[in-house]
Amino acid sequence: MPPSSEPAYVGIAQRKQAQLEAGIPAEWKLPAHMIPAGMLSVADSLTKANQYKRVNVMDIPRKSGILTQRQLDITEKFDVRGLLSQMADGKLSAEEVATGFCKRAAVAHQVTRCLTEPLFASAIERAKQLDEHLQRTGKPVGPLHGLPISVKDCFRVKGADASIGIASLAFKPSTLNSPIVSLLLSLGAVIIAKTNVPQTMGALDSCNHLFGRTLNPLNRQLTAGGSSGGEGVLVAMRGSMVGFGTDIGGSIRIPAMCNGIYGFKPSVGRVPFGDLESGQMPGKGRISLQAVGGPLASSVADLGAVMAEIVPRAELFGEDCIPGRWERESAILPELKPRKFTVGVLRSDGIVTPLPPIARILDEVAESLRQTPGVEVVEIPLPAALKKCQSIAGRLMGVDGGATMLDILEETGEPLIPWLEPRTKRGNPLSLAQLAQLQEQRSAVEKELLAMWTINGFYTDRVDAIITPVAPHPVPEIDRYNAVGYTSSFVLLDYPAGTVPVRNFRESDLETGIDMNAPILGSWDKANRALWNEKTVDRRVYLDSPLSVQVITPKQHDYELFQAMEIIDRASQAWQGAKSAGSKL
Amino acid sequence: MPPSSEPAYVGIAQRKQAQLEAGIPAEWKLPAHMIPAGMLSVADSLTKANQYKRVNVMDIPRKSGILTQRQLDITEKFDVRGLLSQMADGKLSAEEVATGFCKRAAVAHQVTRCLTEPLFASAIERAKQLDEHLQRTGKPVGPLHGLPISVKDCFRVKGADASIGIASLAFKPSTLNSPIVSLLLSLGAVIIAKTNVPQTMGALDSCNHLFGRTLNPLNRQLTAGGSSGGEGVLVAMRGSMVGFGTDIGGSIRIPAMCNGIYGFKPSVGRVPFGDLESGQMPGKGRISLQAVGGPLASSVADLGAVMAEIVPRAELFGEDCIPGRWERESAILPELKPRKFTVGVLRSDGIVTPLPPIARILDEVAESLRQTPGVEVVEIPLPAALKKCQSIAGRLMGVDGGATMLDILEETGEPLIPWLEPRTKRGNPLSLAQLAQLQEQRSAVEKELLAMWTINGFYTDRVDAIITPVAPHPVPEIDRYNAVGYTSSFVLLDYPAGTVPVRNFRESDLETGIDMNAPILGSWDKANRALWNEKTVDRRVYLDSPLSVQVITPKQHDYELFQAMEIIDRASQAWQGAKSAGSKL
Repeated sequence: MPPSSEPAYVGIAQRKQAQLEAGIPAEWKLPAHMIPAGMLSVADSLTKANQYKRVNVMDIPRKSGILTQRQLDITEKFDVRGLLSQMADGKLSAEEVATGFCKRAAVAHQVTRCLTEPLFASAIERAKQLDEHLQRTGKPVGPLHGLPISVKDCFRVKGADASIGIASLAFKPSTLNSPIVSLLLSLGAVIIAKTNVPQTMGALDSCNHLFGRTLNPLNRQLTAGGSSGGEGVLVAMRGSMVGFGTDIGGSIRIPAMCNGIYGFKPSVGRVPFGDLESGQMPGKGRISLQAVGGPLASSVADLGAVMAEIVPRAELFGEDCIPGRWERESAILPELKPRKFTVGVLRSDGIVTPLPPIARILDEVAESLRQTPGVEVVEIPLPAALKKCQSIAGRLMGVDGGATMLDILEETGEPLIPWLEPRTKRGNPLSLAQLAQLQEQRSAVEKELLAMWTINGFYTDRVDAIITPVAPHPVPEIDRYNAVGYTSSFVLLDYPAGTVPVRNFRESDLETGIDMNAPILGSWDKANRALWNEKTVDRRVYLDSPLSVQVITPKQHDYELFQAMEIIDRASQAWQGAKSAGSKL
Repeated sequence: MPPSSEPAYVGIAQRKQAQLEAGIPAEWKLPAHMIPAGMLSVADSLTKANQYKRVNVMDIPRKSGILTQRQLDITEKFDVRGLLSQMADGKLSAEEVATGFCKRAAVAHQVTRCLTEPLFASAIERAKQLDEHLQRTGKPVGPLHGLPISVKDCFRVKGADASIGIASLAFKPSTLNSPIVSLLLSLGAVIIAKTNVPQTMGALDSCNHLFGRTLNPLNRQLTAGGSSGGEGVLVAMRGSMVGFGTDIGGSIRIPAMCNGIYGFKPSVGRVPFGDLESGQMPGKGRISLQAVGGPLASSVADLGAVMAEIVPRAELFGEDCIPGRWERESAILPELKPRKFTVGVLRSDGIVTPLPPIARILDEVAESLRQTPGVEVVEIPLPAALKKCQSIAGRLMGVDGGATMLDILEETGEPLIPWLEPRTKRGNPLSLAQLAQLQEQRSAVEKELLAMWTINGFYTDRVDAIITPVAPHPVPEIDRYNAVGYTSSFVLLDYPAGTVPVRNFRESDLETGIDMNAPILGSWDKANRALWNEKTVDRRVYLDSPLSVQVITPKQHDYELFQAMEIIDRASQAWQGAKSAGSKL
């Protein structure tokens, strides 16, 4: 064979794309006229992202003709518990449910590039086995019998790659399941696909040389988010009931925000996380910042339905997990003051002032809560320590100077994706003393922030949950996401944190605070304003994009986060509904 | 002033000893004839330990004449809940309780050197305030109103030193309380004293140049253990109801074993640990092995009485803590097989074979459990991964090459104590890659050991608790403790672990397995046999010393450890009682 001048990654990427194509049955392929203009090639999707036009592909599954009416109903009309009870009662077979979701996932992929590994054949095969078990024994295999679930590419599913979009990791099929996959399978779930991520998983747009760019189904000009971007898109298009992502800087909450769905970043130890492909030095999470796994879904109830089954079993499958009961964690203590359910409003991280529509959506949610019986709303003064979090989190993520990941890329001559290229350079690993000092700074911040959960510093007078932005800006255009402090801070602090979509961006939001008068806080803040300044952005790009709020609770109060997200979601939806009904009168 | 040839630590030590002396009221000083021969001077107690003779000082408080009969009764006749209810009901004043315990602590100290900081005046003052509060409001200050508690010297009590027996840290009174101290005070506890530790807290005999050697009150020839050695002695002599120690290699469980009391090493996050003096690089625990705080007491019930109040409040005081309820952590899962309370017997750590009396005591406890209704006993096959724990734990403790501690000692020219001197050398700190690799090894071990908690590998068929030795030898002579793998392993694994005393060493134990036939496993095992071989030890030194068993439960199952310790203690005491009654017939 003559020596090729082409770096090795190019051929691997071509083979990987062919493999992906081959995983989608011919009869599930969209006719060319159905695929909206501007998919671009894999390579062009990375480099020519500015060519994308406003296109919404949410209706393609309905229009495609590939799903039967029954399959459309199966994939659209149930929440997790509803679908599970249909299967447990034998009203729907696991096979037809799996087939419906696999088809829908296949269609979604063809217009968004959300998948990496379609597992359709094995999923349908497993679903048949579940049906047989139910018929034979009269009992479902477990509490998630037949539930179609997708997982981010980093999780291992036996027999499939976990390439995370990197050429040198491709064509090395996993020999074992990650513990979370084993746990889900033990409960009866069906893994239907693996989904796309950004190269290195350290970027916020999910694109790489193997699988190209995952597109936002609501508007191709906007980012689909990352690093669990494929999950965000697939779940939003109802190609999967629940998706499992990972989050170290916001990688569950950000794609949930970008695609208008719900995301739940647990505390460490609630969802087994081990044995996955991170492209990082093994053991790094344990000494620096620990990423966590968690679900993305179409409702708070769906998040709860899977967490309720995972949390009590997590310690049986993951050595990194702790016991849990999916019940209220807070102790009942006589000295705690009786209070209404108390929601704090944290308006800024002190580094980036939220853009006007983000400030407004926080106001609206706070107002909806003020009008909810049994809820009290309090303002949280900006804690000085909060400003330190983004930087400590960022430094902890980079303790090794990025060497492991860069080595993996260089193996096949794989270049960095355009967004990463100017932002990445090989650094030196920290010394042990520097690392310890960084962790000590983290402890100091954690300690200072204990007071954030109290009213006026009295530890007996407590805040139950806090609402704050997911990001200081709306869903931005491709490759323009700015500042992850609003999300990474709560990984640093190990606070469980979730994304709740509130409403879509409206014409009237364009008028909010056209000129921001607040003083510029620094370079991050300055960059953020470029996402609102008419000189640097056409604000109309945000029209109809989802606006969300982030909810946090104290460390390890994951069940309380779920409860708080339910209360906040319900209050906010009721209020928005009443408001829009009122405005129509 | 002429330059002195004497290193600075000598003068500091003298001043510190004078300060300690001055903290004990003259009327509480034992007459010279009451102090058993062989206290030795502070300096001699370090270097001439072989001069100690078998002396039991447990009866000195009774004989001293310093405590009134009422004070003897107060300090001897109640458990924690009993004493608390006496005070809450006003039958005993907090002042008289504090005074009784302070006196007894003072007496205990004079025959064992267990204290570092007597806090008698402030303790009695606080007790008076508690009494006033109760009289004024009719209510106790909190659930531990008036409870006399001592703390290991490393914990900070405002106004007192936390020198941990190191000259350069002396005469620097703490300006704040450690969070666990704040928490105990908020509950109404009275801190009556701080207690002695080994130099560096990394040795197992509690001796240093400031405070000398803490002596075992049961037998001066035997070690009092460490590093919470002062606590072990003070609680055993009933100079304190509950003592708070810390444990990274066994420092709560070992002194409990040496002094015949109960010790409880929680999982990380159950007891606030921050803001104490460790003499280590700040942040080190977070990247290597995390020490924990926990109680030593005279009964399992007393351990439970304080843990029940601390665990639900820990997260309010310590940024390093998680929510907890002092209730069963284990989830009720339909797939778990219904079983009796299942206790595993783990006979060895695979590195050091327990000496015959230790093997025998484990057998006796297992037998007592077999005869207990509702309990099933199973053998735990030695897991291969367990053998790796001692070494990984040891390397994690030494990640910084010991530099910080050695720097602190060198500041005042303070030499290492005799036991440490040949065992300590300044090493290089690990690189980040080495550290990550070590933590990855730890994760692998944790993962393998998940199976230890199952019957035949079925995760649905579970072991509730495991009994294993605290050490592979009886309470050894001074400076002869060998191998901490039996205790450090469960810090590495974050399993809660407790010491339960079983019975004293008897003449008949001398006859057990006089010649050990098992093959020697390695250097640790070889060293261990020197504690049994008549050529290297007079075994009769062990007569009447306490023999204990260690109990462990899975990670973060602290409440279940408490329950298991209760069951095991009750079964064992009943069985031992019946056996000795039987043998008298």
